[in-house]
Amino acid sequence: MAEAPANAPGARKVLADEVAAPFREEIREAVATMGGVGPKLVGFLANTDPAAKKYAEWTGKAMSADNLRFELREVQESNLEEELEKANKEVGVDGIMIYYPVFGQRPSFHGGSHDDYLRDTVSPYKDAEGLNHFYRRALYQNKRYVDSESTKKCVLPCTPLAVVKTLEHLQVYDPSLPVGERMTGKTAVVVNRSEVVGRPVAAMLANDGAKVWSVDIDSVYIFMRGKLVLPAESITTEAAVKEADIVILGVPSEKYKMDPSWIKEGAVVINVATSKNIDEKALLSTRPGVRYVGQVGKVTVAMLERNLLRLHKNFNDKVKEGKGGDFYLS
Amino acid sequence: MAEAPANAPGARKVLADEVAAPFREEIREAVATMGGVGPKLVGFLANTDPAAKKYAEWTGKAMSADNLRFELREVQESNLEEELEKANKEVGVDGIMIYYPVFGQRPSFHGGSHDDYLRDTVSPYKDAEGLNHFYRRALYQNKRYVDSESTKKCVLPCTPLAVVKTLEHLQVYDPSLPVGERMTGKTAVVVNRSEVVGRPVAAMLANDGAKVWSVDIDSVYIFMRGKLVLPAESITTEAAVKEADIVILGVPSEKYKMDPSWIKEGAVVINVATSKNIDEKALLSTRPGVRYVGQVGKVTVAMLERNLLRLHKNFNDKVKEGKGGDFYLS
Repeated sequence: MAEAPANAPGARKVLADEVAAPFREEIREAVATMGGVGPKLVGFLANTDPAAKKYAEWTGKAMSADNLRFELREVQESNLEEELEKANKEVGVDGIMIYYPVFGQRPSFHGGSHDDYLRDTVSPYKDAEGLNHFYRRALYQNKRYVDSESTKKCVLPCTPLAVVKTLEHLQVYDPSLPVGERMTGKTAVVVNRSEVVGRPVAAMLANDGAKVWSVDIDSVYIFMRGKLVLPAESITTEAAVKEADIVILGVPSEKYKMDPSWIKEGAVVINVATSKNIDEKALLSTRPGVRYVGQVGKVTVAMLERNLLRLHKNFNDKVKEGKGGDFYLS
Repeated sequence: MAEAPANAPGARKVLADEVAAPFREEIREAVATMGGVGPKLVGFLANTDPAAKKYAEWTGKAMSADNLRFELREVQESNLEEELEKANKEVGVDGIMIYYPVFGQRPSFHGGSHDDYLRDTVSPYKDAEGLNHFYRRALYQNKRYVDSESTKKCVLPCTPLAVVKTLEHLQVYDPSLPVGERMTGKTAVVVNRSEVVGRPVAAMLANDGAKVWSVDIDSVYIFMRGKLVLPAESITTEAAVKEADIVILGVPSEKYKMDPSWIKEGAVVINVATSKNIDEKALLSTRPGVRYVGQVGKVTVAMLERNLLRLHKNFNDKVKEGKGGDFYLS
């Protein structure tokens, strides 16, 4: 068996457990103050993907270890909307998530994408994934509180938030600067521009002061402080990556592999895709000072738990009155 | 000058004025009970299309004739979102509309389509166009009231509502049946599936009991009572039109012309496109019993007025407290 090559000086692999641990500890402490029984998340599974079910079961176990409650509801896709509306109103349900894709690209009565419609139908009082229009709007506008008195913090989408917390953990964020400026002077590349991962993480880094190259299969844009800017001249992904302090990889394809020689010395590389978008050994053995995070799933689940606790803190009084279904008019 | 050919027996052209008149009368009466000064609509113009400006001015004149107030705010597109948020909160603004497209297909920091995002950012208390997620959701779910006590009726998008009111005027709706079943047994074809006209009108007719063929450039779907159904076998637009009691034409192209010989005797044909999607003379001179509505713009404006009054009635108390900006949490 060939021995793994030695890491280049200062290069290291960072495990998600290391990042997630203090958050999980914080969550267990918060639940302890609630008498040891934490809020309840309902996950809706309406597709037949066995991987989604496994992932749901894994989420349930992780939550249970932190004394949070998780209930998986398996429903027919034709009943999902109705079941979702019920859960919005249901006293005792503190958070809701849906395992996507459900309808995917199939045509829909309701409009463009039925999955997008479902995302927007989850009550903002219960949206543990932070994906509905209310939270998207807050994220893109860089509003960090749901109320004008700034007492209730917004939830944020779990995987993008996991990336931010990982970067904080690795002290890429400069804690000596004010909140919202801690990425000043940093350059990031985000390869993927999906509405649930790539775009929001690019926007969050931009809203913290970074210059972000947002790359997808047919375009490269710059995100800077609430604005999308078209690059003055066309730039290759390679050229953008070569100047980046942070590289986020989220290409949903086994085939996509970034050339490790593009990565700047001392950069942080975070892979959020299911498959590995870069050769780990080649990266760590050749690029000095690089820190590489191969998967963030455990941090993502910690963020889901954190969102659930935050929703409970912000809206428990509304939920107990069954107000989750009529949030516009309550 | 060639004389126009005589209409076929029973065929006639229906003018929008004829349909709009009773609604405008009703609106003037309602405003009279308010002391003669009606609610105020703010229209945001952020594009440089002279046609949009003309249309806005025309809307203002029509509203003024009905003693409603209209204020056009011309803003830079980069300020539109902020100005919109201000108007959401502004005491004294009862309704808001935006002249689209603003950003159109251009890439956006905020997600898929910035225009869609703006639609969803208009407060439901003030959404005179009925296009935000709250009202879309109600429309597609066939919920006709905003509250569970059924005291406050939803607003609906203006052009689709104009089509429905035109069909009611022409007694295509059967008033002897209960609300929600008055199109039972009727078949409609809607050529266009845009999210602001074609899709909602197809859904509204389907929710009233019709079988609706929804046609766009690359697909034909059936809409029936809250469901989109894929046709069992492929069908041409011609075959669908030949069995339709109602044909709605909304193709935004000068070039599109439907063959008048496809239209069934006695059918109602409504053109909602800016250009004429069918040859009026050929239609009326050859197809007995056909009623043809060549444009619905005046009915659309009457529906905009109606929506404004409804919003005022439903939410005036909230608007006076400046609650239009924080509707989720008020």
